[in-house]
Amino acid sequence: MKKRVTALGTALLAMAIANATADSPAKPQTMRQVLDASKPSDWRPLDPANTLYMDLPSGRVVIELAPAFAPLHAANIKTMVREHYFDGLAILRVQDNFVTQWGDPDAETPAKARSLGNASKTLAPEFERAIARDLPFTRLLHGDVYAPAVGFSNSMPAARDEKAGKTWLAHCYGMVGAGRDNGVETGSGAELYVVIGQAPRQLDRNIAVVGRVVRGMELLAALPRGTGTLGFYEKPEQRLSIKSIRLAADVPVAERTPLEILRTDTPTFAALIESRRNRRDDWYKLPAGKIDLCSVPIPARAPPSHATH
Amino acid sequence: MKKRVTALGTALLAMAIANATADSPAKPQTMRQVLDASKPSDWRPLDPANTLYMDLPSGRVVIELAPAFAPLHAANIKTMVREHYFDGLAILRVQDNFVTQWGDPDAETPAKARSLGNASKTLAPEFERAIARDLPFTRLLHGDVYAPAVGFSNSMPAARDEKAGKTWLAHCYGMVGAGRDNGVETGSGAELYVVIGQAPRQLDRNIAVVGRVVRGMELLAALPRGTGTLGFYEKPEQRLSIKSIRLAADVPVAERTPLEILRTDTPTFAALIESRRNRRDDWYKLPAGKIDLCSVPIPARAPPSHATH
Repeated sequence: MKKRVTALGTALLAMAIANATADSPAKPQTMRQVLDASKPSDWRPLDPANTLYMDLPSGRVVIELAPAFAPLHAANIKTMVREHYFDGLAILRVQDNFVTQWGDPDAETPAKARSLGNASKTLAPEFERAIARDLPFTRLLHGDVYAPAVGFSNSMPAARDEKAGKTWLAHCYGMVGAGRDNGVETGSGAELYVVIGQAPRQLDRNIAVVGRVVRGMELLAALPRGTGTLGFYEKPEQRLSIKSIRLAADVPVAERTPLEILRTDTPTFAALIESRRNRRDDWYKLPAGKIDLCSVPIPARAPPSHATH
Repeated sequence: MKKRVTALGTALLAMAIANATADSPAKPQTMRQVLDASKPSDWRPLDPANTLYMDLPSGRVVIELAPAFAPLHAANIKTMVREHYFDGLAILRVQDNFVTQWGDPDAETPAKARSLGNASKTLAPEFERAIARDLPFTRLLHGDVYAPAVGFSNSMPAARDEKAGKTWLAHCYGMVGAGRDNGVETGSGAELYVVIGQAPRQLDRNIAVVGRVVRGMELLAALPRGTGTLGFYEKPEQRLSIKSIRLAADVPVAERTPLEILRTDTPTFAALIESRRNRRDDWYKLPAGKIDLCSVPIPARAPPSHATH
């Protein structure tokens, strides 16, 4: 909560000096220092076969899918995307401090609804899955109001109930889910939402979380709020049109957005958590000592070879 | 996360029927039912001597000050407001998932900065205060990552450390604070911010929280994000001008926005918390059982006598 950028400038200078003279790995670090000291192996590239580009008139939103948690939904969404289902559809709903949601404005009118093509209209619910050895989990040790355990799997915020042997993705800022009606099988992925406010964790285990926005959240969070029930736009002209949603693998390489994500199963990520639970710049007088699951940033960056583009 | 308004319509109808036939107070209720059954004494009017109207080109933001927690800051802000300090100043910063901030664009340029008039340029830090009998506290029993105890005081989210005998307001969505530089006494209230994302609780006890937006958050949360460092706007023309900030008491009665706030020290508020921790509509399959401090809504409404305006 700096009053001014100048204050930050001073802090950045102090950090740069501290960084240059730091010779002990145990020395407290800022997040910037942690990231500057990261190794190439601390990052993993986004898999183009698992990444969506949602192109809006205002720019591109990049979404990483989570097939480890919602394989049926991820596959169904990919089928729709490959058949250009979302192209020309719209953002229908922006509810303040809750979600932005998009899909077919005419979905409820059979005569006008766009066909789902080869995609399924219903899917088995994927609200949680079994804990398994091949699914990494970096546990966060500061507690959680909602779940017995929380942490990170594949660079996404997740929760666990070890007694029940279950794990699920957590509804943090930027997480993407598949809207459904009252029936648990009614979420096909044809209508998607993203969290734009305080984490609505009450949705956890009630709906399929299918991925995470890794770039472009500001394009979805800064939209005018809808004035209808639940934040739906009341007039068609208020809706924002979606130019297209494409699988990155289907986009020419030159038109892709190269990104890599910080891995969450590394000592570097542990150092990042430490840097965020106890802030090290001169501004903070009382470090919190703890951090909430949904307050831990999961950085994305252009790969170093692209950094100067 | 309804897919459609029609689904909600059905739910509302079901609720209306349930409400009409509910004769046991122990029957689980939705929030709507709790509010519909509230008594006039469950609400308190906003005190015009303690309420700010921030008039933007897009509409009015209503802020309730918190003099019980930040008396010096509240008084200093009122001095500035009465001397029209903020009129014509601007929203300077919108950082995604963090804060929207406003003040004098020229504050750091002594030759151009607007005078604070009779207001103080520095204030003793009011980052926490002593627990006292005359400050009510409705404790929330579901835990918290950051503080030993959390709950509500005067219809605002608050935290407590009973061992230390201290309490402070929590940085939930919509809470307003006084920006400061590195010195703890540098926050005068001349630059204010509001939380627009996941609760940045790491700020708690590091800065003075001075109030809460009770209406109009959508006007502050949906603004384009700044592209400069910390989300500051890079070009003057990107800033949104503030028409005026007035104390409600100084505004003619006919131009006021009549609002009352749900009291948080009542059985009705306890019932509201219950309705939110265990959602009762047909959509939810697995009620959370718990609720985070910053996920509890604190409703405001037009007084019933104004409801038809």
